[in-house]
Amino acid sequence: MYHTHTLQERIADELAELRIPEQPANLYEPVRYMLQIGGKRIRPLLTLMAADLFSISDMEAAVPAAVAVELFHNFSLVHDDIMDNAPLRRGHRTVHEKWNPNIGILSGDNLLIMAYAQLAKCPANNLPAILETFNTMAAQVCEGQQLDMDFERSATVGIDDYLHMIRLKTSVLLGAALKMGALLAGANKADAQLIYDFGVGVGIAFQLQDDILDVYGDPEQFGKQRGGDILANKKTYLLVKALEMADTATRSTLNDWLADHSNPLDKIRNVTAIYDALGIRSEVEAAKQLHVKQAYTALDALPVEVARKTPLRELAYRLLNRGQ
Amino acid sequence: MYHTHTLQERIADELAELRIPEQPANLYEPVRYMLQIGGKRIRPLLTLMAADLFSISDMEAAVPAAVAVELFHNFSLVHDDIMDNAPLRRGHRTVHEKWNPNIGILSGDNLLIMAYAQLAKCPANNLPAILETFNTMAAQVCEGQQLDMDFERSATVGIDDYLHMIRLKTSVLLGAALKMGALLAGANKADAQLIYDFGVGVGIAFQLQDDILDVYGDPEQFGKQRGGDILANKKTYLLVKALEMADTATRSTLNDWLADHSNPLDKIRNVTAIYDALGIRSEVEAAKQLHVKQAYTALDALPVEVARKTPLRELAYRLLNRGQ
Repeated sequence: MYHTHTLQERIADELAELRIPEQPANLYEPVRYMLQIGGKRIRPLLTLMAADLFSISDMEAAVPAAVAVELFHNFSLVHDDIMDNAPLRRGHRTVHEKWNPNIGILSGDNLLIMAYAQLAKCPANNLPAILETFNTMAAQVCEGQQLDMDFERSATVGIDDYLHMIRLKTSVLLGAALKMGALLAGANKADAQLIYDFGVGVGIAFQLQDDILDVYGDPEQFGKQRGGDILANKKTYLLVKALEMADTATRSTLNDWLADHSNPLDKIRNVTAIYDALGIRSEVEAAKQLHVKQAYTALDALPVEVARKTPLRELAYRLLNRGQ
Repeated sequence: MYHTHTLQERIADELAELRIPEQPANLYEPVRYMLQIGGKRIRPLLTLMAADLFSISDMEAAVPAAVAVELFHNFSLVHDDIMDNAPLRRGHRTVHEKWNPNIGILSGDNLLIMAYAQLAKCPANNLPAILETFNTMAAQVCEGQQLDMDFERSATVGIDDYLHMIRLKTSVLLGAALKMGALLAGANKADAQLIYDFGVGVGIAFQLQDDILDVYGDPEQFGKQRGGDILANKKTYLLVKALEMADTATRSTLNDWLADHSNPLDKIRNVTAIYDALGIRSEVEAAKQLHVKQAYTALDALPVEVARKTPLRELAYRLLNRGQ
């Protein structure tokens, strides 16, 4: 098996060596910029780790699919940042801020096309299954982003709606990244589905943890100020659950705070106090654990030597226990 | 061989029967809307006609690639309309106007992903070559759109820059549509390149004709009011050539009219008068004929029975002799 950091280096090298044209500069500079400002490259790593889990005979055969996953992720970030009007990404100015929204649209389009150009390098015998996995995921990620935008304007978002949305918007990409590595290693359909389920479970749990950390995280470890979601009235698991659990009076107080933009610190303190009174933190922790458990159940069910699963198990542990 | 209208009907049926999900409605309604407001479906027709030219054994094998070409075309229209701030498309409100720009971005993304989902249905033995042709074209179309936007702000666009831009923005899609049909029919590389060259030549000639029609077309036949490009200061072949050919005094007058937005009819009349004085119409007609000739030279060179080329020749004739 490979060391995880060996696979990480392989991805970093491949991304650094991607041939990105010089001209037109306004199209390709933003592409280069997005890839240079970094990110943890977790998703392409998952592709290579899944290929390794299923003992791929030539790891190089999985590299283009891994790169495609990272390019797709960056495409979705560039377009989402326009839609969300986000000024910063990974501590740097977003593409539409540094250039303009039109350049964001077009360089995002190009990142998506570049992802498919990588997929086209997959071994021909795997190509149809890889494309199908990728295309299904890609459509679902768009659906998730649309639902997220729809939810901003909806008063009736329930917990199931929320879980469905984060499943599509953020989790199926982890599942598909793993599944593509498995398919390239020759895994059968049932095993490819199990590793996909593992990824989706980890993805949902990761997002729920993100929701928790916004309110209860240690800002120094989490790297963000507390309460950003509260100030933005973001429909997180915490808010949706609180609106569901609150009695009429508490819901009314909560809605008043949602409508209040006058004192940010007061808003964060009071909304957090409502979450505390309702016991929301343990609710979302329980939901997170449920999805962690589902993820590990899928991983455990894989008919692969237990020791081969250790690197994925360790990566998931690190992802799901940060910033607290 | 197939009658052209038989192939057109096959495309119309396939597009009408595309399975587009109902939800999220804000993602898929714009997709359905774009496909319903029509268009002439020339590009997918080219794919099927090229497949027929090279005597494809099963025309059904070429249908997904043809649909992919049409979906890609619609993706590029939705995103270009946002970037160009265009209110109307095919006489209907553009997606970003009818919904909003975010929905335009995301439903455009989805159209692109839907195109790749169609490509994934191509016969596995053709898939790598089809993907490579499509991906190269797709990146070039983005490059062309970026150059078009760059040219709006550039004072130094020359005729070669302009021809390079329209080649990328509009012509390579026609070439790739034809090449994909040829590849699916088993054409060799040299023949696939010739039919591609035919498409690119027709595409450039078509765009030059579009530039002519804006100034000299019969509005009733062309379907647009005259002078739209002049009022928008659009860098057409006519304007770029006029700025190149004019002496200092005439160039100064032309630039004055470009800066003038007070009287549209005067602007159109005076700019047209400068074009007439410089003999621009015959310049652009000559450039058009050069590309028409290059297109037919490529078609003639194809080692295929002459009669099989008749439908494509007739279609090109119709495209290149409209509205005058």
